[in-house]
Amino acid sequence: MRYFEQHIRRVTPYTPGEQPKETDIIKLNTNENPYPPAPGVRKALQEMDYDLLRRYPDPAGEPLRSAIARELHLKKEEVFVGVGSDDVLAMLFLTFFNGDRPILFPDITYSFYDVWAEMLRIPYETKPLDQNFTIRKEDYFGENGGIVIANPNAPTGTALDLSALREIIERNRESIVIVDEAYIDFGGESVVPWIREYDNLLVTQTFSKSRSLAGMRIGEALGCETLIRYLNDVKYSFNSYTMNTTAILAGAAALSDRAYFEETRQKIIETRIWTAEKLRELGFAFSDSVTNFLFVTHPVVDCEALYVALREQKIYVRHFSKPARIAPYLRITIGTKEEMEALLGAIREYMKKEGAL
Amino acid sequence: MRYFEQHIRRVTPYTPGEQPKETDIIKLNTNENPYPPAPGVRKALQEMDYDLLRRYPDPAGEPLRSAIARELHLKKEEVFVGVGSDDVLAMLFLTFFNGDRPILFPDITYSFYDVWAEMLRIPYETKPLDQNFTIRKEDYFGENGGIVIANPNAPTGTALDLSALREIIERNRESIVIVDEAYIDFGGESVVPWIREYDNLLVTQTFSKSRSLAGMRIGEALGCETLIRYLNDVKYSFNSYTMNTTAILAGAAALSDRAYFEETRQKIIETRIWTAEKLRELGFAFSDSVTNFLFVTHPVVDCEALYVALREQKIYVRHFSKPARIAPYLRITIGTKEEMEALLGAIREYMKKEGAL
Repeated sequence: MRYFEQHIRRVTPYTPGEQPKETDIIKLNTNENPYPPAPGVRKALQEMDYDLLRRYPDPAGEPLRSAIARELHLKKEEVFVGVGSDDVLAMLFLTFFNGDRPILFPDITYSFYDVWAEMLRIPYETKPLDQNFTIRKEDYFGENGGIVIANPNAPTGTALDLSALREIIERNRESIVIVDEAYIDFGGESVVPWIREYDNLLVTQTFSKSRSLAGMRIGEALGCETLIRYLNDVKYSFNSYTMNTTAILAGAAALSDRAYFEETRQKIIETRIWTAEKLRELGFAFSDSVTNFLFVTHPVVDCEALYVALREQKIYVRHFSKPARIAPYLRITIGTKEEMEALLGAIREYMKKEGAL
Repeated sequence: MRYFEQHIRRVTPYTPGEQPKETDIIKLNTNENPYPPAPGVRKALQEMDYDLLRRYPDPAGEPLRSAIARELHLKKEEVFVGVGSDDVLAMLFLTFFNGDRPILFPDITYSFYDVWAEMLRIPYETKPLDQNFTIRKEDYFGENGGIVIANPNAPTGTALDLSALREIIERNRESIVIVDEAYIDFGGESVVPWIREYDNLLVTQTFSKSRSLAGMRIGEALGCETLIRYLNDVKYSFNSYTMNTTAILAGAAALSDRAYFEETRQKIIETRIWTAEKLRELGFAFSDSVTNFLFVTHPVVDCEALYVALREQKIYVRHFSKPARIAPYLRITIGTKEEMEALLGAIREYMKKEGAL
């Protein structure tokens, strides 16, 4: 084996949900928003000065960065923008997790955390959620190299009690605590205001879910000015301009339409409540979700087989085979009410065929 | 100092050229294209299905990746796309430079190479260019952990003799050799066809210069399928979707208009030749550029003072204070003929005032 072959970084990459090319499918597998982005996004991109694409974008992502700061009542120096929250989280791991102590996160959570840790050779330990898929706060009180908590958690969909989260942060003033709020707009309570209290706290959010802009790749980190400055230094050592001109304009336009944002997220929350009720009637079991998805299992129905059967009907939901204890579950994105009706119809049909209904 | 403060990655980031916000300036400092992108770019983005921005983009950057493959007569498996060639190069460093031996690059070259090496803690050595700012190929024949060569080189603007470049690659079959072709379309000869001969060669290119799309952040790496697969694994371990929907569409649209590409790059080459002649008449000295910029010095005029004087006239060119031996030089981007006339007028005026003309 040649020298260069011995020194290639060999990793097992994260596997995102399928992105089938067909248009006649019902896609409930990647937590995308069923509603289009705010109308102002189209307007902003159609009316932009196309000649200016020959110029580099603003390196700090202005005016998007300032728009996020205004929205969250922060200073722009407390805001970092990136190519989706994945880019932001990767940069956070690269910037802040460089010690020998293991970083901690739950065993069942966003499955990119261990991929970043492996890729960047960061030692890590996972802490098992309890039987109700809830974090045991005591697991995070020992010595560690950093903590990553998705709140609400994915794929479970539930939120951690804020007093437990606060206790974890308070007992870890020696560590960076990242709170990943990708799904916060669907019913959770954000800890963004806490960045003024805790200089070891970083919060990430995304435009991919509640802002219907998965295709534009926009995410952000919020933290005290000092942490954001270190994060920016690493970002500027990686790529001077990560946010392209259209992402900057689209993000700022999306933020400016608060009414549309409220309307669409309320519709998703209502559809989630309605879908949950219908699924409970069919015998599915799950905790209360505060996200745009439900994480469901069934005492009788084999959910992996159901996943395959739905796929044959061109209805895509998400099934995770790892870790083993979530293999009996499906993660179902909340689509439009019509999409959820079609899903429920297909589930009923499957259950009848299997004698489970 | 707390644990987390001790383990922050502290870096000195790359400093990009200034991006002043005023519109009444002549901007010849970041090698942007003076002509707008191909008209098809505007059309593609204005006519796109905006509702689809709620969906994640294609993770592999299709159809852009395939369009690049067709353009360069490669298989799509030999093409990797990223957020500008900076993102691509950062990913290459992260993927392939993980050994203990130092990577090698010239002392005067793209000043991001040492920033990536420092940030990723990759050992490196710089090899001085000779007095004519040319690579001494023998400097690259010893044991090393990888080689990075910008060809044509920046900020010098000159190309390396291809037989010398081939010899460097052939004598380094144990190492990854990266050839950074950011400026290749303005007169250089690409080594992309060599990726079929050398499984240790990776070539990077960008849409920021010759395709007038700096604002869209599009770059690519070309290499044998095996290297591109390892690169993709790392990319998918960093961010599943780096290229947003608009970048994918804009890049593909730009590639499809060959006539516009030929016309604009010829205009830039002609303006470069004309500008070079005029600057020589004023006593400036420089090597022949095969890029969209000139790297000039003057036996009498203090170029740093000239840089400051031009800036006061709202004409921005680039001055590098490091390394010391390029401090007497200016890097001047080729703009439109009108912009270069204005620049030459301002230089003449400055020289008269200083008694140098």
